[in-house]
Amino acid sequence: MVESDVPLDSYVRRIPAFLDGRDTPRHVLERCLERIARDDEQIQAFVHLDMEGARRAADDASVRYRSGRPLSLIDGMPMGLKDVIETHDMPTQMNSPIFIGFQPRRDAACVAVLRGAGAVLLGKTATAEFACGRSSSTRNPIDPSRTPGGSSSGSAAGVGAGMVPAALGTQSQASTIRPASYCGVFGFKPTHGRLPLDGVAPLSGTLDHLGVFAGSIEDLWAVTAVLSRAGGGRHPPLASEILPAMERPRALVRLDTKGWAETDSQSQDLLDSYIEGLERSGAAILSRRSDARIEALERALADIDAAGQKIYAYEAQWPLRAYAARGAYAVGVRIREMIAAAEAMTPADYEEALRRREECRALVEALRGVAQGFITLSSSGPAIADIAYTGSRSFAVPGTVLGLPAMSLPMLKNGHLPLGVQILSFQGRDAELAATAAWMLQNGKEEDR
Amino acid sequence: MVESDVPLDSYVRRIPAFLDGRDTPRHVLERCLERIARDDEQIQAFVHLDMEGARRAADDASVRYRSGRPLSLIDGMPMGLKDVIETHDMPTQMNSPIFIGFQPRRDAACVAVLRGAGAVLLGKTATAEFACGRSSSTRNPIDPSRTPGGSSSGSAAGVGAGMVPAALGTQSQASTIRPASYCGVFGFKPTHGRLPLDGVAPLSGTLDHLGVFAGSIEDLWAVTAVLSRAGGGRHPPLASEILPAMERPRALVRLDTKGWAETDSQSQDLLDSYIEGLERSGAAILSRRSDARIEALERALADIDAAGQKIYAYEAQWPLRAYAARGAYAVGVRIREMIAAAEAMTPADYEEALRRREECRALVEALRGVAQGFITLSSSGPAIADIAYTGSRSFAVPGTVLGLPAMSLPMLKNGHLPLGVQILSFQGRDAELAATAAWMLQNGKEEDR
Repeated sequence: MVESDVPLDSYVRRIPAFLDGRDTPRHVLERCLERIARDDEQIQAFVHLDMEGARRAADDASVRYRSGRPLSLIDGMPMGLKDVIETHDMPTQMNSPIFIGFQPRRDAACVAVLRGAGAVLLGKTATAEFACGRSSSTRNPIDPSRTPGGSSSGSAAGVGAGMVPAALGTQSQASTIRPASYCGVFGFKPTHGRLPLDGVAPLSGTLDHLGVFAGSIEDLWAVTAVLSRAGGGRHPPLASEILPAMERPRALVRLDTKGWAETDSQSQDLLDSYIEGLERSGAAILSRRSDARIEALERALADIDAAGQKIYAYEAQWPLRAYAARGAYAVGVRIREMIAAAEAMTPADYEEALRRREECRALVEALRGVAQGFITLSSSGPAIADIAYTGSRSFAVPGTVLGLPAMSLPMLKNGHLPLGVQILSFQGRDAELAATAAWMLQNGKEEDR
Repeated sequence: MVESDVPLDSYVRRIPAFLDGRDTPRHVLERCLERIARDDEQIQAFVHLDMEGARRAADDASVRYRSGRPLSLIDGMPMGLKDVIETHDMPTQMNSPIFIGFQPRRDAACVAVLRGAGAVLLGKTATAEFACGRSSSTRNPIDPSRTPGGSSSGSAAGVGAGMVPAALGTQSQASTIRPASYCGVFGFKPTHGRLPLDGVAPLSGTLDHLGVFAGSIEDLWAVTAVLSRAGGGRHPPLASEILPAMERPRALVRLDTKGWAETDSQSQDLLDSYIEGLERSGAAILSRRSDARIEALERALADIDAAGQKIYAYEAQWPLRAYAARGAYAVGVRIREMIAAAEAMTPADYEEALRRREECRALVEALRGVAQGFITLSSSGPAIADIAYTGSRSFAVPGTVLGLPAMSLPMLKNGHLPLGVQILSFQGRDAELAATAAWMLQNGKEEDR
């Protein structure tokens, strides 16, 4: 695992020290601010900081811990927010010339619920334009010549650089799982509809997800559980802010998907040997070679990216067209291409893509009970040496399009570069996925191999 | 039916005159502006007008008709937009002190799709605070001593006063069906998820709907069909902008619901005799007295308002809390009460309310195939003589909570005041509902009785 570093290690595990006065959220915040002052000129994770507001919020949390009454497990946790999320006290600029200096007058639902739990909202993090267009200038914290991935570039890089213990992103294609992999942090995109999207710039109603980044799985889970309280009725809130106890899965499905053929051989070897470690630790590993139902799913998944791209372009055309209509320079080339792709489609093309998604969902559902989850790499190799390109989406797309919970675990290293392992599960099984992930963190490690 | 008046009568039926040069969208707009200049000081339907932009858009549409190439059936149609819908070129103030003078930088998805179809967006219409709090000062166009209903007060009153042929509202409780009834206009809230809500101030993810008001059913349908193109994947777009051909239903279910006991006897008599007219025209009318499954549904519906209020308060607490946190005067008393109701609930209370909704949905679904729709009044009597109170929600709530398509038809008059008949159908049967409504407009009329 990538070496942890203050304050990348678990915030939640500091709570005993907050309660007995050995540490305070304010001290944690100051350490975050020092790290930002030192490194963010190079990394460019943040596009806006509210140091004064953050210090005030951290002091309030420090008082609550002293009196033994924190609001939640994330009370006082410094966090970054992807700059497509509306905040009433910080600009929301979306890396768009249309939104330069734009100040919303409300908080997104996710922001409101974080504030209510005592989180310290330190600043806004760099994003690709509207989470789908031109890249930000953020650099990878492990190797600044490389991309941090995107579109949640600043959130992943900020956590990876130890500037904040956790941050929010989004994922409509690969925007959480991929940058988590490249930046060596935990990333989690729960079941579609589990987390609230009100007040987050919309792209595609059936593909948009909120995502969470953290330096530890305990923090990742605590933030997710708090967010789930404002989920809006598609799923009940997650039961506890405390990470579910690790549970060894009886079986996991190893999926190739379209990504495997794109992957360099060293990264392939890393996953192979990691999975062998899991098998030695007692989980059965199924694959297309062992089960005809998995082979059928793999065949369907080979086309899911094409269907997903159609669904994405078709659904996202409404917000994107409204932006593009603002003038010749209003949006970048990628967004114009997405609009053109949508304009080339008929409603029948869209419905056909939706049908293909439903067929794929049925093939996934047929495996419920057969295995506890699915394993892939989180990205088809480590971060690439191009700041303007956020990397291949292939491994993240199936989980997005099918709305499955997906988590990236920073388990592997390809040379000096981190590489995530992705664990997916069935719709609604977010807590079970976390229990499996906790087990994976304790098994299949480098030293076990 | 309430007497129609220029430009309340059908815009769509003017298209032949636009095409052969006898009339133009610009002329229609000028007649709307005259009506507004004459009456809106008293009615207060509009909170913002963009006359210059509207004239430009109407001229563009006039040119398109002259060249025989209109963009849609609503090309050039002057429309009002409830002021909880974001517009990049007009303020969006939501009847909230927090949003005084607030200028969004994007169009809501519904606005983008209307603009793309050539609609002339004339202005923003008065709303209750965030569509759920303190009332606007709008007055009923038929009797200015009375409420227009709410929360889509200005949209209903503006259409009812002949200021625009159509307008957009929302409905999370009764905010389209009720004001349509009080103002003597057509109101339509399609199946939940059918129309796009991106860029509309959110309250409750499972209850929020976009609603349409119009002076004619043809216009109502054309606007709805255009909007459905940006529906975001929950349902495919409606097939045609042209109103479906009328179709006599084999059977309709007459529902009492909680509203019937609230209704004055004159309004009850009006519905009774209207329904007798439908029976004479050949539709079988079923009721709790004729079918045990309907009796079971009625018994379940008696409690649906209580469950709906719980779901509403619980889901709406996230946006509302964020507003309330802005200061002691930031939100009105009704909103503070809603937040308090949510704070008194546990997640288990919420889940129990969701379960009751599902039970009710199953009882409705059991009648699919038995009847083509459900009939009630749209409101428990005509508009009341109190501007600050938007009226009882009882008749509209079942359709909202269950997500059923619901349309209010301006068929009845109680003294000088209009009273709507509500027709509901099964989820997804929006076009079938319109075909039934078209038949109802031609049958059961005053002269047939």
